[in-house]
Amino acid sequence: MALLSVLTPVLVAVLCMVIGFMFVKSRQTETTSQDETKGASKAGFRPWVDQDLQDDTEITREDEDGEWVDSAEEEDLPHVPYSPPRYPEEKMLQRSQEFYTLMNQRRSVRLISPEPVPREVIDNVIRTAGTAPSGAHTEPWTFVVVSDPETKHQVRLIVEEEEEVNYRQRMGDKWVHDLAKLRTNWIKEYLDEAPYLVLIFKQTYGILPDSKKKTHYYNEISVSISCGILLAALQNVGLVTVTSTPLNCGPQLRLLLKRPANEKLLMLLPVGYPASDATVPDLKRKPLDDIIVHM
Amino acid sequence: MALLSVLTPVLVAVLCMVIGFMFVKSRQTETTSQDETKGASKAGFRPWVDQDLQDDTEITREDEDGEWVDSAEEEDLPHVPYSPPRYPEEKMLQRSQEFYTLMNQRRSVRLISPEPVPREVIDNVIRTAGTAPSGAHTEPWTFVVVSDPETKHQVRLIVEEEEEVNYRQRMGDKWVHDLAKLRTNWIKEYLDEAPYLVLIFKQTYGILPDSKKKTHYYNEISVSISCGILLAALQNVGLVTVTSTPLNCGPQLRLLLKRPANEKLLMLLPVGYPASDATVPDLKRKPLDDIIVHM
Repeated sequence: MALLSVLTPVLVAVLCMVIGFMFVKSRQTETTSQDETKGASKAGFRPWVDQDLQDDTEITREDEDGEWVDSAEEEDLPHVPYSPPRYPEEKMLQRSQEFYTLMNQRRSVRLISPEPVPREVIDNVIRTAGTAPSGAHTEPWTFVVVSDPETKHQVRLIVEEEEEVNYRQRMGDKWVHDLAKLRTNWIKEYLDEAPYLVLIFKQTYGILPDSKKKTHYYNEISVSISCGILLAALQNVGLVTVTSTPLNCGPQLRLLLKRPANEKLLMLLPVGYPASDATVPDLKRKPLDDIIVHM
Repeated sequence: MALLSVLTPVLVAVLCMVIGFMFVKSRQTETTSQDETKGASKAGFRPWVDQDLQDDTEITREDEDGEWVDSAEEEDLPHVPYSPPRYPEEKMLQRSQEFYTLMNQRRSVRLISPEPVPREVIDNVIRTAGTAPSGAHTEPWTFVVVSDPETKHQVRLIVEEEEEVNYRQRMGDKWVHDLAKLRTNWIKEYLDEAPYLVLIFKQTYGILPDSKKKTHYYNEISVSISCGILLAALQNVGLVTVTSTPLNCGPQLRLLLKRPANEKLLMLLPVGYPASDATVPDLKRKPLDDIIVHM
């Protein structure tokens, strides 16, 4: 009896341990099985999500499929006839050739002139980017146009700090000998000099009037398509940029620019006229036969 | 002494529990701290990979940073002066307005005319898409243009089969009552009718002459940008399409079109003139003030 009463607290302690252990164990198993069935449940119950798709669409409700509807409320909208201008074949061919020639002149330019550019032109370029299609017509983009010199400089400091870390770490292993050349790479003068910095944010989800989250299907693909149209619009007016994705700076830049938590930086484009001494590497593009397959 | 020897196995058991518990706990902490430092370690050893980036770039070697160089061998290429055409401000403004007007007429169209379209126009449109920038100038895209009626029909069968599964699963839960309306959604007549189907593949990695894998940085973003330029080029010649991402059919379509394992389907665009009776939902785009922020 004396022995039992001595043992009792010990047994209680052991029981607590066992329960604690099992609790932890069960939570672990739960996590694992969730991971394992993620792919299957996506294919099974979320038909619009593909197992290959790496876009970070945050899923909050179901939707139709992979075809991009023009609007989530499309069924409710009245349909109207659609007859865009139609060109004779000769004219089509000419237009296709001219547009190719124009776009083929586009190059990534790092030497940007500080000369001012009319803001109305930039507004029209962004307006044009906003005509892109988007998953379920969510239009999940925000274009932050920075022209204030102090804010541009803050952007530069954030980007260069991150870049410098990258370069110094690399120098630590294999490129120690080439400091001077690398230095020219982490210094981004164009971030001060370009009259505009366009920071393109993807809205990873939307926020409904009742504060619930709204799924933004394929938001990264949608915003990237919009960026392609933006690049075309810039080229069309004779402005230059360099496509950059300084994504490790995304959180800091988001805070600097006071963007909400559902937005993530996708691209940063310095925009302006090319500097008078601008040069570009003499690279070639793949010939058509390397990128097209007719069947 | 007797009490102690009785207690010993109990104490041992307790000790084992405690050790077991701590082991599990430590593994959990390890996992957590790994998650927490993922961003930091990535930033440390893979400076070009962002913790936010969901692109499925397969990393096989290091590269500079988030800025898109024009070529991986850029340092070795000679630089040449770059002076694209420059327009007076009035002209820029006019061009920006005209391009916006043209692009703003673009709509996703599902009713596509079977009339033939000159192949040379399609070639020029693809050529134009190929002028897009890409991470490290890898040009990670393949445009498969299907005009053969039998192949188009095979594509349709694959896409419709997948869509039908999606719709039937949904019908199982909440939309049972609306079978007729749904049916019109999984039937994709345009896949037979459009004179061309353009299937856009992203090359998730390249293959070097020595058979090693070459990293295709930001390949999904790059190909999506290219698709944006392609949509602009189509609109410019008066052709229509509907942006679709039938990604669950990707593997089957890849096999049908005999594409290699490093390519994944990103988009499927039926291309042609709009049908004479084409309609589109009467939707609106966000006003400029909702998508732009000036700072």
